[in-house]
Amino acid sequence: MRGAVLHAPGDVRLERRPDPTIIEPTDAIIRVSATCICGSDLWPYRGIEAVDGPAPMGHEYVGIVEEVGRDVSAIRRGQFVVGSFFASDNTCEICRSGYQSSCIHRQPMGAIGTQAEYARIPLADGTLVATPDVPSADLIPSLVAASDVLGTGWFAAAAAAVGPGKTVAVVGDGAVGLLGVLAAKRLGAERIITMSRHEARQKLALDFGATDIVPERGEDGVTRVKDLTNGLGAHSVIEAVGTQESMMQAIRATRAGGHVGYVGVTHDVQLPGDELFFSHVHLHGGPAPVRRFLPEQIELISNGTIEPGRVFDLTLPLEDVAEGYRAMDERRAIKTLLRI
Amino acid sequence: MRGAVLHAPGDVRLERRPDPTIIEPTDAIIRVSATCICGSDLWPYRGIEAVDGPAPMGHEYVGIVEEVGRDVSAIRRGQFVVGSFFASDNTCEICRSGYQSSCIHRQPMGAIGTQAEYARIPLADGTLVATPDVPSADLIPSLVAASDVLGTGWFAAAAAAVGPGKTVAVVGDGAVGLLGVLAAKRLGAERIITMSRHEARQKLALDFGATDIVPERGEDGVTRVKDLTNGLGAHSVIEAVGTQESMMQAIRATRAGGHVGYVGVTHDVQLPGDELFFSHVHLHGGPAPVRRFLPEQIELISNGTIEPGRVFDLTLPLEDVAEGYRAMDERRAIKTLLRI
Repeated sequence: MRGAVLHAPGDVRLERRPDPTIIEPTDAIIRVSATCICGSDLWPYRGIEAVDGPAPMGHEYVGIVEEVGRDVSAIRRGQFVVGSFFASDNTCEICRSGYQSSCIHRQPMGAIGTQAEYARIPLADGTLVATPDVPSADLIPSLVAASDVLGTGWFAAAAAAVGPGKTVAVVGDGAVGLLGVLAAKRLGAERIITMSRHEARQKLALDFGATDIVPERGEDGVTRVKDLTNGLGAHSVIEAVGTQESMMQAIRATRAGGHVGYVGVTHDVQLPGDELFFSHVHLHGGPAPVRRFLPEQIELISNGTIEPGRVFDLTLPLEDVAEGYRAMDERRAIKTLLRI
Repeated sequence: MRGAVLHAPGDVRLERRPDPTIIEPTDAIIRVSATCICGSDLWPYRGIEAVDGPAPMGHEYVGIVEEVGRDVSAIRRGQFVVGSFFASDNTCEICRSGYQSSCIHRQPMGAIGTQAEYARIPLADGTLVATPDVPSADLIPSLVAASDVLGTGWFAAAAAAVGPGKTVAVVGDGAVGLLGVLAAKRLGAERIITMSRHEARQKLALDFGATDIVPERGEDGVTRVKDLTNGLGAHSVIEAVGTQESMMQAIRATRAGGHVGYVGVTHDVQLPGDELFFSHVHLHGGPAPVRRFLPEQIELISNGTIEPGRVFDLTLPLEDVAEGYRAMDERRAIKTLLRI
């Protein structure tokens, strides 16, 4: 089969890779219908995360089940399925508490690489959720979004304790931040402040439910959020970047007793204990347990209630994966969908 | 009047201070019945926090109202009252959300100094809670405990989301950690692991409801907590120390999706963002909003349900305040009560 492989920073290629096979009896093999490029794929692409030799890329996927191992019972050949970036058994104590991305048997899909024609999915019964029918083509982008960025934005909103009557601020205007806006709206937020200086992203945020746009960053951004909230800060802040500046911006924009939900993969972040202590904020986040949200999100997408696939502003065939990376790296695209 | 003043590290003296007077119409003056020495008082006493010239000491207090300003309506002369270490209006949006220690009008009682015969209490209507009657002498230690350490331990347990069926670990065996055990028991915890290597403190923890004692610290302590929890870590961890080691011990002893409630005043702590991110823990804490818990705790103390005053293992007259500091500094006493 063909799949994307990163050889060095900036050097991603579509090349021949071995067809996947069932290794464990709990595995499934899927024919990937669509995949995409994640903001987190840009870290190694930009050389900020080390690249140790050629690495298969991609961890988002939807597709048709081709084959299942002998211990797979809930998932069947021919079903259309959505999974996420950690395979999980969905039965251990941690999964049952809603933290499937910390499943005691979790396996990272990024090591398998789903920017490819086929993929092996470990722990298929726990990892995959089947759609009621094979979906129409127009639903595919939204279902791919549910594979990572939608669930990640949703988890951030849940971690930030978004709810009716609350004021929410969103730090980060990438796909996750934008879908954090969508999630906050669905969860009943009264006011949603998007921190963005990028016109197309601002527009999409407004479409998803944002009520205010703050283009300032850092301390100026914090001051603007406080100005909009009687000097107190937002009840809930979604952090969807992962840098020292964005984390401190999120913490400082939150009122005492408020909640920060952070899902930007942290890079070189050190949180000062004394400031955190006196801030009185709640801090929660990490790799989103996307699996927790999949059944509800598939339903909301299937019945047309939400359209998270709008974050894809570039669609390419898998052949053009290298251009997909370039467009995101240069911020020409928010997020690239790859059709196979 | 006489009051304790810190002149330099290790040098605390009882000396003449001006009698307090009503400054703002929302003030009250109380005759202090009892006060105590806090673990946080040891930071400047030990020279770890800078001492800028002579500083009045103390922020815990119970006493009889002597005089009230013209705008005080809920509190009356002659009442026995309990307050806490931040004066708060108890009416602002932050107070109403339960974070009185971040009240927009808060005033630190430590700057006023309650290790003294009298004290001015700002925002008396918001800050003070009157007991139903003037309590009997045997209840005084527990009511002084409610002024800080009980509410702080309770807040830590609440911040750590302690509840029925949960396993709780407590890092720190000072008065706050011990009362965190008591709070966890009251909040329905199934199992309470106290991390302590000090026999008298272990015994009190067991009396307060601890089910397991772990004497190991740091990584060994984390390993022991994991051994006791199927390798997963505790659901809820109370952190009541405030050092880098204790914070990391708390975070690492918590399961994915679990909660750390931290109330040890942080000193030179830097939390590594990446470890926090992948730990999947909830982190919440800060200066405890003791005022939130006072009405319920006064009732539980008055009807004999709880006896938090047992953390005082040394009682001295105010004259011997210097010996009280020495005993705590040398860990001869868990906590010193000062009677006036």
